[in-house]
Amino acid sequence: MRILVFAGSLRKESLNKKLATLIADKLDALGVDVDAADFREFDMPLFDGDLEVSDGIPAGTQELARRIAVADAIVIVSPEYNYGVPGPLKNAIDWLSRIRPYPTIGKICFLASAAPSLVGGARGLIAIRPALSFMGLWLSGDSFSLAQANQAFEDDGSLVDADLNKLLDGMLDRFVKVTGSAQTN
Amino acid sequence: MRILVFAGSLRKESLNKKLATLIADKLDALGVDVDAADFREFDMPLFDGDLEVSDGIPAGTQELARRIAVADAIVIVSPEYNYGVPGPLKNAIDWLSRIRPYPTIGKICFLASAAPSLVGGARGLIAIRPALSFMGLWLSGDSFSLAQANQAFEDDGSLVDADLNKLLDGMLDRFVKVTGSAQTN
Amino acid sequence: MRILVFAGSLRKESLNKKLATLIADKLDALGVDVDAADFREFDMPLFDGDLEVSDGIPAGTQELARRIAVADAIVIVSPEYNYGVPGPLKNAIDWLSRIRPYPTIGKICFLASAAPSLVGGARGLIAIRPALSFMGLWLSGDSFSLAQANQAFEDDGSLVDADLNKLLDGMLDRFVKVTGSAQTN
Amino acid sequence: MRILVFAGSLRKESLNKKLATLIADKLDALGVDVDAADFREFDMPLFDGDLEVSDGIPAGTQELARRIAVADAIVIVSPEYNYGVPGPLKNAIDWLSRIRPYPTIGKICFLASAAPSLVGGARGLIAIRPALSFMGLWLSGDSFSLAQANQAFEDDGSLVDADLNKLLDGMLDRFVKVTGSAQTN
Repeated sequence: MRILVFAGSLRKESLNKKLATLIADKLDALGVDVDAADFREFDMPLFDGDLEVSDGIPAGTQELARRIAVADAIVIVSPEYNYGVPGPLKNAIDWLSRIRPYPTIGKICFLASAAPSLVGGARGLIAIRPALSFMGLWLSGDSFSLAQANQAFEDDGSLVDADLNKLLDGMLDRFVKVTGSAQTN
Repeated sequence: MRILVFAGSLRKESLNKKLATLIADKLDALGVDVDAADFREFDMPLFDGDLEVSDGIPAGTQELARRIAVADAIVIVSPEYNYGVPGPLKNAIDWLSRIRPYPTIGKICFLASAAPSLVGGARGLIAIRPALSFMGLWLSGDSFSLAQANQAFEDDGSLVDADLNKLLDGMLDRFVKVTGSAQTN
Repeated sequence: MRILVFAGSLRKESLNKKLATLIADKLDALGVDVDAADFREFDMPLFDGDLEVSDGIPAGTQELARRIAVADAIVIVSPEYNYGVPGPLKNAIDWLSRIRPYPTIGKICFLASAAPSLVGGARGLIAIRPALSFMGLWLSGDSFSLAQANQAFEDDGSLVDADLNKLLDGMLDRFVKVTGSAQTN
Repeated sequence: MRILVFAGSLRKESLNKKLATLIADKLDALGVDVDAADFREFDMPLFDGDLEVSDGIPAGTQELARRIAVADAIVIVSPEYNYGVPGPLKNAIDWLSRIRPYPTIGKICFLASAAPSLVGGARGLIAIRPALSFMGLWLSGDSFSLAQANQAFEDDGSLVDADLNKLLDGMLDRFVKVTGSAQTN
C-alpha cells in the first residue's frame, strides 16, 4: 500500500510540514510505503487558462498527478489562511483538475492541519472539502487539527500530548485499514 | 449489506423523495438490504438544550440513531434551502450529535440532491458536508445532483435521461462495492 | 434607529443569550431603540412544504418577519452546532424565505457567537453567511466570536476581558454608524 | 466616489472579464470614478512565508493594496474553480492579509460571477465570502451570477437578456447608493 503525504505549505519551517513528517513516520511504522513529498516539488505557476493553452499542464502539476496516480491514498496537511484553503494549495487543485480523468478519483484522503492558534486550522479543512469531493476523493470520517502547534512538538518531532498522540494513532490505523480494504475503483 | 436511504424533506411529493425511491430501488436491484425510510418517521422537535435535560433524546432521534447503527452505509437525498442545508435535516443532525458515541461513526455516506432549478441542489450538498464529516461519516467521492428535477422523471419513477441514469448507476455500483469492502470500524 | 437583537438558541441559560443581552445593552447605551427578542417568541414547526400549503406561514415566522421589517438592522448571536448553523436557526431562515419579498432585504446584519470552546463558534458564523447573503442582508465587515464563553462574563453580564470589551464596543459603534448612514433600500 | 473593479481571472478572454467590463461601464454611467483593473496588474508569486521574510510583500500585492486603499468600494467578478474560489484570487487575498491594517477594512464589496455552466459560478461566490468577511469587507446583500455566460453577451458587451440587465442595474444602483452613504470607517 502506497500513501502520498504532503503539507500544503511552501514554507520550510512550517508547523504543517512538521505534522506531515510525523504522520509519514507513523504510517511508515504501520508498514505503509510512504511517499513523503515536499509541496515545493510540485512547483507550478498561478493558474491561467491562456498559459494552459500555450504551454500545457505545468511539469509540477504533472508530477503531482503522477505521484497521486501511483498512490492508494493521500494525506494533506494544510494550514488555514484567512478562514479558508491556502491559495497555493487551491491553485494546485485547480491545475490538477485540468487533467482528465482526475488522478484523484477513488483515492482515499485523510486531512490534517496545524496552527499556532487555538483553532488549529479546522476552518481551512472545512473550506477545502468541497473541492476535494469534487475531485472524486473519498474523505475520511476522521481529521486531525493540531491547535497551539508551536508548543505541540517535542524536539524529536513527536507530540507532547500523549492523548493527542493516541488519538492520531487511532485515526491513522483506521485510515490504513480502510485504504487497504476499500475497493473504490 | 444494509443501507439506510432517506430524503431530508418532510414534504410528501418532494422531488428528493422521488430520487430517494429511485436510488433505493437501484440498490435493491444490486442485492442490498435497503431500509427506505421516510424522514417523517424521525419526528423530533427543534433542538433545545433545556428540552434535552427535561425530556431526554426524542424518540424520533433515537429511532434514526438505531436505523443508522444497524446500517453499513447511508444515502441522504437532500434539497437545498437558501444556499444551505435544510433546517429540519440540520436539526436532526444536531439532535443526533447528542448521542455518544455518534451512531454515524465509520459509516459510508452517499449524497444526492434534486431540485427544479438548474443547479440541482448542489450548494446544499456543499453546505452539509462539514457537519457530516464532523459526525465521522466517510463521504463518497461521488455525489449526484439532479437539475430540473421536475422534468427528470418518467411516470414509473425512472430517469428520462439515459446518460444521467447510467452515471447514477455507476456511482451506486461503486458505493456498494466500497461499502462491502471498506473496514471503517 | 431600531435594531432587532436575538440569540439563535432556544435554551434559557444559553451563553449566546448572555452575549445577546450584553450587545443589546451596549446598543441601548448608544441611543439605539433596541428590540431584544427571545428566539422562543418566534415559535415555529420544522419547515414542511405541505404544512405551508395547508396552514400557511406559521405565526412565529410572521412575527419574526414583522420585527425584522420594522428594524433598520439585526444582530444575530448564534451558537455553532456541529461545525454549522444551528438547525432551529436555519429552520427559521427557511420559513422566512417563504415570505416575498424577503423582510430581510437591505437590512444591515451583525453576527456574533459565543461558545465554551476555544473556537468561540466562529465556524457556525461561516456556515450561516451564505444563507443570510441569499436573503439580501448586508453583512457587517466585523463579527464577534467569544471563546471560552463560560468564563468570559462577570456576574453583572459584562465581559471579564477589557480588551475584548473594547473590541466589541468598537465594532458596535461602527455597526450603528453604518446602520444610521447606509441607504440600502 | 471611487470603485475598484476587477475579475479574479488571469485569462485574457475570460467571461468574468467581460462581465467586469460591463459592470465598470455601468458604474461609470452612474457617475462613479471607476478604476477598472486587470488582475494581471497585480502579479505576485504563490504565497510563501519564507519569501515574505526574504523579499517582503510583492510589488503586485502592494499595488493591489494601494488601489483598494484609495477606493471606497470594490467589485470582484470571480470564476468558480472546482466548487471553490480560484487559487490565484485566494492567493492574492492571502498575500494581502499580510499587510496590516488590512486595506480592505470598511470597504463595501459587491460580488459577481460568470460561467458557461447553468450555475453561473454561484458556488465560487459562496466559497469566497468567509475570507472576504475576515478581511473586514462589508458584503453587499446583492450578488450577480451570470449563467450560460458564453451566450449571454451581445457583440457590444451588453447583456442579451433585458430582465437580467435590469436586475444588474438595480443591484448596482443600490451598491452605489450604499457606498456613497455608509460611514464604515
